[in-house]
Amino acid sequence: MKRTSRDIRTANRYEVLRQIIAESPTSRQELAAATGLSLATVATLVGELLDLRMITEVGFEDSAGGRPRGLVAVNASGGALIGVDIAETYVHVELFDLGLNVLARADEDMRPGESRPEQVVGQVAAAVGSVVAQAGVEAARVLGVGVSVPGQVDRDSGVAEYAPNWDWHDVPFLDLLAEHIAYPLYLDNPLRACAVAELWFGAARGRGDAVVVNLGTGVGAGLALGGGLHRGVSNSAGEWGHTTLVLDGRLCHCGNHGCVETYVGAPGIMQNLRELSPRSPLLHPEDQTATIEALAGALASGDPVALKVVRDTARYLGAGISDLINLLNPELVVLSSWVAARLGEPLLDEVRQAVARHTLRRPLAATEIVLSPIPTDPVSLGAATFALEGALQSVGQRQGAHKGPAKGPAKGPTKVAPKGTTQRTTTLARSRTAPPS
Amino acid sequence: MKRTSRDIRTANRYEVLRQIIAESPTSRQELAAATGLSLATVATLVGELLDLRMITEVGFEDSAGGRPRGLVAVNASGGALIGVDIAETYVHVELFDLGLNVLARADEDMRPGESRPEQVVGQVAAAVGSVVAQAGVEAARVLGVGVSVPGQVDRDSGVAEYAPNWDWHDVPFLDLLAEHIAYPLYLDNPLRACAVAELWFGAARGRGDAVVVNLGTGVGAGLALGGGLHRGVSNSAGEWGHTTLVLDGRLCHCGNHGCVETYVGAPGIMQNLRELSPRSPLLHPEDQTATIEALAGALASGDPVALKVVRDTARYLGAGISDLINLLNPELVVLSSWVAARLGEPLLDEVRQAVARHTLRRPLAATEIVLSPIPTDPVSLGAATFALEGALQSVGQRQGAHKGPAKGPAKGPTKVAPKGTTQRTTTLARSRTAPPS
Repeated sequence: MKRTSRDIRTANRYEVLRQIIAESPTSRQELAAATGLSLATVATLVGELLDLRMITEVGFEDSAGGRPRGLVAVNASGGALIGVDIAETYVHVELFDLGLNVLARADEDMRPGESRPEQVVGQVAAAVGSVVAQAGVEAARVLGVGVSVPGQVDRDSGVAEYAPNWDWHDVPFLDLLAEHIAYPLYLDNPLRACAVAELWFGAARGRGDAVVVNLGTGVGAGLALGGGLHRGVSNSAGEWGHTTLVLDGRLCHCGNHGCVETYVGAPGIMQNLRELSPRSPLLHPEDQTATIEALAGALASGDPVALKVVRDTARYLGAGISDLINLLNPELVVLSSWVAARLGEPLLDEVRQAVARHTLRRPLAATEIVLSPIPTDPVSLGAATFALEGALQSVGQRQGAHKGPAKGPAKGPTKVAPKGTTQRTTTLARSRTAPPS
Repeated sequence: MKRTSRDIRTANRYEVLRQIIAESPTSRQELAAATGLSLATVATLVGELLDLRMITEVGFEDSAGGRPRGLVAVNASGGALIGVDIAETYVHVELFDLGLNVLARADEDMRPGESRPEQVVGQVAAAVGSVVAQAGVEAARVLGVGVSVPGQVDRDSGVAEYAPNWDWHDVPFLDLLAEHIAYPLYLDNPLRACAVAELWFGAARGRGDAVVVNLGTGVGAGLALGGGLHRGVSNSAGEWGHTTLVLDGRLCHCGNHGCVETYVGAPGIMQNLRELSPRSPLLHPEDQTATIEALAGALASGDPVALKVVRDTARYLGAGISDLINLLNPELVVLSSWVAARLGEPLLDEVRQAVARHTLRRPLAATEIVLSPIPTDPVSLGAATFALEGALQSVGQRQGAHKGPAKGPAKGPTKVAPKGTTQRTTTLARSRTAPPS
């Protein structure tokens, strides 16, 4: 894969905005020092971001002699971003300002048997409409909607190729969604959403190579390498959940045996509990969330069964994370997503011990394992970040986001943006030449 | 890890020289098209390489109208590079011209019990002296010596941190070698040497992300991501041999159980044979090389035991390679090193079938598995490439290579370069301002 001049420029644009969001206000000189870019490059990129009204000039720095340095800060109200986290059991949507502060939230439960694509699309459209209305932002200010769908996705075509828990195959998800939503749309999956959230706003920001281990119903490892998300040649990198950990072990829905996911995903943890104590009151058959909550509660009160389940789970998880550390030699491993958040420090402690037993000395010494510090849902934050990246990527391009099949204006009963206000194909680049009224 | 302007410039310099070595003669315009760099950037980098005398102007291209385009080609005799492959059972040294053609070779056997660092250093020094003498190159033309040592190495300090087969711990290998060899020295290990050889000269050149699976006594996976070698934060990335494949499986010398290496490294393959047919005439106890050779010969004549051993090995190897493909989504997987070369197509066929059974559809569709096309020893070629990269990295810097502890001139009985001709700390950058006589 050739890394073209355009790729490098886009990566540098991300890097500079990321730094401004983290450290507003800041000067071009500080940005150059923090990013390793030349002052001239930083000045050009800052100029672009000012033109986009993503950042603003906010005065001058006191300087001990010498010329005063101009300061810039993120222009929080310069636009809005929407992140959609579609999980196996719920749809969660958040609307953010450009400082990535949450302005509004909406949730929809997904009941078993209501996971047909059209049903999910309807729920997403309703929730997106709700957050826009709640936040009271003008439709024209919504720069994009990032959507995370579990499983394997084709980012370019907006197709959900394979979502094992719903048995979705080749669902043209963004095309369906485009019937209802008029903003630029971006599709990806939770493991990469969690990774990009850590890279921009979490534990991986400004750090060396990081692995973001995503523990939910499914399991994955987002790879933040060389300061950017490693996507692989067809955007499917990170499918660590299907690493063989126990040859000929538990059957996985992927068709293989012994995958990491079957031991450390929420259903796998339930199975660990079932094998240890088949009649445990902690076990809520058919309800992953309730079981993990019950385990978390029992851990807090020192329940020995809960502790043993976490230890067993950490043994598998630790072996799998050791493999990642030995292979990739990262500076950081971040435990993310809802299972990690619920089981928290007790899980982290056990994982650290298991990793120390399994990992080679040199990579072990270079790495640190932490819980995600992101206080809100990392998947919707990451999904919104994909929309932000899309907006930054479209600078100077005509089209940045997914285009649906229909050539005419978007249609449909729950279409969110008022007709004529914004077209789905509106990009930041276009709004620069014709700013929204 | 910040990717600084300097890093990008160095990576671009590699890319341009790599392309010139592959396609001499070529024009700046062709180089820009092949690398995705701007013509201005290419012109600057070509200028640097011309100054270094690594390439030369070789006339003009016939052009259908328009101005004739200047052509450049690699200046094969502009310098020499030495690659040292220290393996568990031998030391193999090759001297290359700048077109990476082999000009001379030397081998030393390493007998059991003769693997103390001082003994190995003596063998390396003798072999390096031999190739320089054979090739008849002036000492001043040797741009550097790349040394590959199995196990974990600290590249910056030149220390072999851990070589399990010899029980080396924290051996200051380059410092010891610097007592005998006056050229710039670069230390790394075979898995990264094989990967960089594929990246510059083999199957991975000009391709997307690639994984180079190194099958020898030890096992590893060199990662060629984003057009460069992924080293990790402390240069230990690629230790895939210690991935847990069978929880609680065979004991590995790393202290863990069930590591990939214990099933697919040469001793692991011997064990697969022993478990299948304890009295097989193919089994040469205590001699890995002879056993692998016997297996290769038996495969050629359709021997069912040999075929079964290869199939069993491929089952493990395929599961492990599937994990790599699922995690990294590479365009290419290359099977490299001596075991892969000996077992060849039969192993490749079985691995492809096993991988197809284990891998997720999307990453499987994007990847190709091949045998290394490099006809000579990939480890010494890769080691020499590290010396070439070192020379390119030192452009504009004062020091590019490892410096030994002694401040004075290099010393020692088998010191290779005549005193006064070249100092170990001489870099290309320095020789630009004061060319060797």
